[in-house]
Amino acid sequence: MIITDICIIGAGPVGLFAVFEAGLLKMRCHVIDALPQVGGQLSEIYPHKPIYDIPGYPTIKAQELIDNQMEQIAPFNPTFSLGERVDKIERQTDGSYYVFGSDSSLIHCQVVVIAGGLGCFEPRKPELANLEDYEGNFVHYIVKDPEYFRDKNIVIAGGGDSALDWTVFLSDIAHQVTLVHRSDSFRGAPDSAEKVYDLARQHKINLLLSHNLVGLTGNGRLEQLHLTNKKKEPVVVPTEHFIPLYGLSPKLGPIAGWGLQIDKNAIEVNTFDYGTNTERIYAIGDINTYPGKLKLILCGYHEAALMCQSAFKYVYPEQKLSFKYTTVNGINTF
Amino acid sequence: MIITDICIIGAGPVGLFAVFEAGLLKMRCHVIDALPQVGGQLSEIYPHKPIYDIPGYPTIKAQELIDNQMEQIAPFNPTFSLGERVDKIERQTDGSYYVFGSDSSLIHCQVVVIAGGLGCFEPRKPELANLEDYEGNFVHYIVKDPEYFRDKNIVIAGGGDSALDWTVFLSDIAHQVTLVHRSDSFRGAPDSAEKVYDLARQHKINLLLSHNLVGLTGNGRLEQLHLTNKKKEPVVVPTEHFIPLYGLSPKLGPIAGWGLQIDKNAIEVNTFDYGTNTERIYAIGDINTYPGKLKLILCGYHEAALMCQSAFKYVYPEQKLSFKYTTVNGINTF
Repeated sequence: MIITDICIIGAGPVGLFAVFEAGLLKMRCHVIDALPQVGGQLSEIYPHKPIYDIPGYPTIKAQELIDNQMEQIAPFNPTFSLGERVDKIERQTDGSYYVFGSDSSLIHCQVVVIAGGLGCFEPRKPELANLEDYEGNFVHYIVKDPEYFRDKNIVIAGGGDSALDWTVFLSDIAHQVTLVHRSDSFRGAPDSAEKVYDLARQHKINLLLSHNLVGLTGNGRLEQLHLTNKKKEPVVVPTEHFIPLYGLSPKLGPIAGWGLQIDKNAIEVNTFDYGTNTERIYAIGDINTYPGKLKLILCGYHEAALMCQSAFKYVYPEQKLSFKYTTVNGINTF
Repeated sequence: MIITDICIIGAGPVGLFAVFEAGLLKMRCHVIDALPQVGGQLSEIYPHKPIYDIPGYPTIKAQELIDNQMEQIAPFNPTFSLGERVDKIERQTDGSYYVFGSDSSLIHCQVVVIAGGLGCFEPRKPELANLEDYEGNFVHYIVKDPEYFRDKNIVIAGGGDSALDWTVFLSDIAHQVTLVHRSDSFRGAPDSAEKVYDLARQHKINLLLSHNLVGLTGNGRLEQLHLTNKKKEPVVVPTEHFIPLYGLSPKLGPIAGWGLQIDKNAIEVNTFDYGTNTERIYAIGDINTYPGKLKLILCGYHEAALMCQSAFKYVYPEQKLSFKYTTVNGINTF
């Protein structure tokens, strides 16, 4: 059994920063995450993408932010259970909690902090009969490493920002990019749509609007994508890789059954300490909701800081919290 | 007259980040600050100090953070009135505001954002008859550049974190440091006090507890500091510089007269959009207060982001705000 002060569910940027803020108040953390590495969406979905709205960084790649945050929390020696979902939490008579991981981890803590981002999110998949046959090697729901597609023939499907954005980005990397969309207009940012139209006009990509997906064929690998056009005529696009980007469908998963107040897949919290309706359980970052909520990393950082001030009383019930600035006191490791 | 969308009062880290968040929403900003340079307290009081709690920076010097933030907002071309206090704001019949600077700047804006930090803060001064004669060259209320005191004889006075911290720091730089405190125990962090006691034990500093200041003497420059000890006996300490660090006394200044709800020198705001009790006037960063408020830079960043979402309706009353991620849309300069 792992014994800690705070168990943080979710190792994304907000969960990691909670480790730091907790550390300043001498609270130890154990972090558990379903993904096999720290970083949440940043490391899993867009490690190579630049982020522009982290205060003090005109630009920083997602993975670099995570690396820096890992360095920032190193003095506080957090422990991790990675590749493990949290199935269940159990309140003890003294108010503390047991947290049960899907892979047999058992964590005893005074406070539970849910920093689960979008939850156990799953890609929305097109309804195609033999899709599964090509998943993994030839069908991709996220672009983890753009270089994987260098000099390849690829088809991207979708009409949102992700589809537009990756079409623009991969047009420089792949040999041939085809963007397929069932409608004749895009849901994504007008600026991005404009860039896609430009690329199509310059014949740098193929753009197939008002086309519907029908099926995939190939012999041991993906070879053709079958579509129908507006007039329901069949269209065949030769391709090596198919990247349907229909968004991620966030699922709270087991968390939905913990008796917390939920509003549209997010956990309702107050803005005083980002506590839930259950004592000792907090929710910070993209997984929470409150009036004015913005799903920004920088907002999650603030939520982590306020949460720790409140969690302190459960970890050190006998002590008065004295607030100190790092410029004055530095970092005291443990 | 300067015409802008948002007038930000205060060019500290939070005011500067508000420029960035406003820029993402295509709102232009003019920033006015009483100090002659941007950066607020960070540049004025502790430019060389490391900060440890900026998310994603294991450590960053205060001035470096400000420099990075200036680079981050450069694409949005903010304009500045520096070295100017705001004396008065005046609501117009259409809801917009005139902001009057003390040095004749006149700014017309749709929204006023007060990011004034501690306000027009002033150092608390010891009550010594001829103190003014030595101010500027020999009496210093802040340590802007520690190198200024290299190989000098200095006396620091005070019992809080600032006095302890600078005593430790300058003990390596100055020729001789004397710390004077009227009481026999310190208000500052026990860790820092311990370091000071250690330095005194090792004779690396002079520590004069339970001593009271009496006066300064010198011929054209500071030469002696006069004290009395616990038994009211006179004590004379030869010194070249005197650094009384009794803290800063924050003063809201003219802002206190603008009809905003004030609680203990801070402006009351809601946590939905960090608006004050007056429409189109927001307060963010150390100058505001709300339940759970933490005076941390990272909290001000969050407040700036939420404020901008709300301010948008006054700048673009006909438009619907569509929220976009910088990872998807990047930065569009103007």
